[in-house]
Amino acid sequence: MDGTMAAETNVRDAAYPRIHPDLRVTFRVVAPNARSVQVAGGDGLGPEPFDMERDAEGVWTVTTPPAVPGFHYYWLLVDGMQVNDPSSQTYFGYGRPTSGIEVPEPGVDFYEVHDVPHGEVRSHGYRSRITGKWRQATVYTPPGYDTDIEARYPVLYLQHGAGEDETGWVRQGRANLIIDNLIAAGQAVPMIVVMECGYATPVALPPGSPFPEVIKKIVAAFERLVIDEVVPMIDADYRTLPDREHRALAGLSMGGMQALGIGLTHLDTFGTVAAFSGVPFGDIDPAVDFGGVLSDPEAFNRRVRLLWLSFGSAEARFVERVQQFRELLDRQGIAHEVYESPGTAHEWQTWRRSLHAFAPRLFGG
Amino acid sequence: MDGTMAAETNVRDAAYPRIHPDLRVTFRVVAPNARSVQVAGGDGLGPEPFDMERDAEGVWTVTTPPAVPGFHYYWLLVDGMQVNDPSSQTYFGYGRPTSGIEVPEPGVDFYEVHDVPHGEVRSHGYRSRITGKWRQATVYTPPGYDTDIEARYPVLYLQHGAGEDETGWVRQGRANLIIDNLIAAGQAVPMIVVMECGYATPVALPPGSPFPEVIKKIVAAFERLVIDEVVPMIDADYRTLPDREHRALAGLSMGGMQALGIGLTHLDTFGTVAAFSGVPFGDIDPAVDFGGVLSDPEAFNRRVRLLWLSFGSAEARFVERVQQFRELLDRQGIAHEVYESPGTAHEWQTWRRSLHAFAPRLFGG
Repeated sequence: MDGTMAAETNVRDAAYPRIHPDLRVTFRVVAPNARSVQVAGGDGLGPEPFDMERDAEGVWTVTTPPAVPGFHYYWLLVDGMQVNDPSSQTYFGYGRPTSGIEVPEPGVDFYEVHDVPHGEVRSHGYRSRITGKWRQATVYTPPGYDTDIEARYPVLYLQHGAGEDETGWVRQGRANLIIDNLIAAGQAVPMIVVMECGYATPVALPPGSPFPEVIKKIVAAFERLVIDEVVPMIDADYRTLPDREHRALAGLSMGGMQALGIGLTHLDTFGTVAAFSGVPFGDIDPAVDFGGVLSDPEAFNRRVRLLWLSFGSAEARFVERVQQFRELLDRQGIAHEVYESPGTAHEWQTWRRSLHAFAPRLFGG
Repeated sequence: MDGTMAAETNVRDAAYPRIHPDLRVTFRVVAPNARSVQVAGGDGLGPEPFDMERDAEGVWTVTTPPAVPGFHYYWLLVDGMQVNDPSSQTYFGYGRPTSGIEVPEPGVDFYEVHDVPHGEVRSHGYRSRITGKWRQATVYTPPGYDTDIEARYPVLYLQHGAGEDETGWVRQGRANLIIDNLIAAGQAVPMIVVMECGYATPVALPPGSPFPEVIKKIVAAFERLVIDEVVPMIDADYRTLPDREHRALAGLSMGGMQALGIGLTHLDTFGTVAAFSGVPFGDIDPAVDFGGVLSDPEAFNRRVRLLWLSFGSAEARFVERVQQFRELLDRQGIAHEVYESPGTAHEWQTWRRSLHAFAPRLFGG
C-alpha cells in the first residue's frame, strides 16, 4: 500500500488506521447505517473533529493532515455518539478505555524495544486501609533485580495525569522501555519505578459532603496513601534504598501537581521532586504553600537534591503557568531545572521526553 | 437504587450497567441520534440481542432476564454497528478490546480478593527468535517469591482461548486470586503460573502461502515457541523446579487443544496436561495422533501424572466432544479425570471453576 503502514496500536491484523510517510493518518470505519462519522481526539491530531466520507458500501474514511509524532488518544463520533475505534487498542484515559494511535517520530527510538536487558513490570496488589479498597500499584524492577539478590535500588515514584490510571506510564508512556534503554546506555542508574493510581477516596467520606470538601479530602487521602501506605509497602516488599536521598516523586499534569504538593511538603521522604506539565493552580504564597519551604531558599537548596520542571512548547496553557512558577522560584532563590519539549502538546510525547531527560539526573546518575 | 448495584466491571463512577438482586442486568446508553440500540454478547447474557428502549432524552435502557453468574463479554449494536459500552471496562476477547460485565455468583468467593497473602503478576517481555517480535508473557509468582529467595517452584503453563491474549487469565479469569486463595487455604502448593499469548506467526512465513499451510505453520510455531523459547526462558529467569514432574500445561478452548497437542507430544517436558472445554477436532487415531502415546496405556499411565479434562454442562457443542474424547480414552485404557461445571457455558465461569478444581491436583498438592 504505497509506503503507508498499519499503526502499531492497531488490534491484531487490522489494516487501518494507516500512517503515511509524511505522518498523515488514514482512518477507516465500517458503519453502513450511520449518517455522520467523525474522528476526534486530543491536541496531537488536530483541534477539530475530522469528517469521514462514506463510500457506496458504507465504509467511512478520512485522511488527516500530518500528525504530531507520539501517542494520541482519539475516538469516533458516530451520529454524535462517542465510541472507540474497533480497529485500535484501548488505553485508560479520560476516565475510561479510549482508543489510542502511535505515530512514529522519525529517527527517534528512545522509547522503542531494543536488544538490551529488560526489566519487569509487575502488578502489585494490596488492600488499602485508607480507601478500604483493593488497589494495584504498577512496579518496574530493573534488569538483574531477580538475580543480583543482594542489590538494593533507588525508587522513582511516577504519577499519571487526570483521567488515567496506574497503567498509563507503561502502556502510553513506555516508561519501562525508556528506563531499560537509559540503563543499558549507562545514562541512568538501575532503579525501581512505582506507578500508582492517583485517586484515593477515603473510607470515611460522608455521603452528601459538599464538593470542595470532598475534593480536599480526596487530595488529602492520596497524600496519606503515598506517605503512610505506598512508600512503606514498597520499602517492605522490594529491595529499596529506603531513604529520602534515594526516593524521587514525579508526575505529569495532575500527577505533577500531586508531586509538588506531596513531595515539597514531605522532604523527609523525597529528595527529588519533578512536575511534567504540572504546576500549582492559582497564586502561591511562599510563606504558606508547601509548608513554607519555598520561603527558605538556603535550607531548600541544601536539602533538595533536584527540583525539576518540564513542559511542551505547544501546550499553550501550561507554557505560561510554568513560566510564572519559574519566576516565583527565581524570585525566591529556589534552585530548579527546566526542560522544554519542542513542538509537543499536553500529550504523552512531552512526558516520554520528560522522563528521558529527567531519569539521567536521578540518584547520582 | 432499590437493591441494585453498579457492576464491578464498570469504569470509575459509572452507575450503569446495574445488577439486580435476582441477577437481571440493566444496561443504559446515551445515544440521542441512534435509531436502534441493542445489547449483545456471549452465551451468558442470552442467545439473542436485547433491544434497548429510548426515552424522550435519547437515553436507551434495557433490563435482561437473570444472567448466568460470572464474566460475560458483550457489546452494543448502535444502528447495527458493533461498539463497546462506554460505561464498562474492556478486555481482550474476540481479537480486540471488548466490553465485559461481572455478574456475581451468590455465596461464591473463590475468585474474590481476600485478606490473604497475594502473589504478583508480572509482564515479562522478550524478543522471540521464532516470531521475530517482542512478546510479553504474563507470569504469576506466588506469595513469598521475593523473600524466600532459596525456594524453587513448580510451574503451571496456562493458555487462553481463541481471540484472547496473555492478559485473559488474570483479567477475565482472576487466575492470580484463585491461586492466592487456594495457597492460603493449603489447598494448592505455591506455584508459578505462566500465561503466554497463544498465537505465533513464524518469521519465515512466505507471503501468499495457502491458508491450510499457514495454519499448520502457525500451530507448529507456537509449539516451538513453548518448547524452545518459553520453557527455557522461564527456567532461566525464575526459580523453577525445572523438570517434567514440576511442569503442567493447561488451557481453555483453543488453549486446551494446544495443551493436548503440545503437552501429549512433549511428555519429556510436561508431566501433567489439562484441557478446559477444549478437545481435539475430528477423529483421533491413537496410533498416530499425539505421537501415538494414547496407544500404549501402560507407558502413558506410568509416565503421565495427570490428564485432566473439564467442560461446562451448558456448553452444548463441547459436552458431546468431551464425551467422545473420554470414550476414546476409556477404550484405550488411558487414565484421566473429568470435571463438569454445572450450569455454565463456554465462558470464563467454567474456566475459573476448572482452575479452582484443577490446581489442587497439581504437583502433589
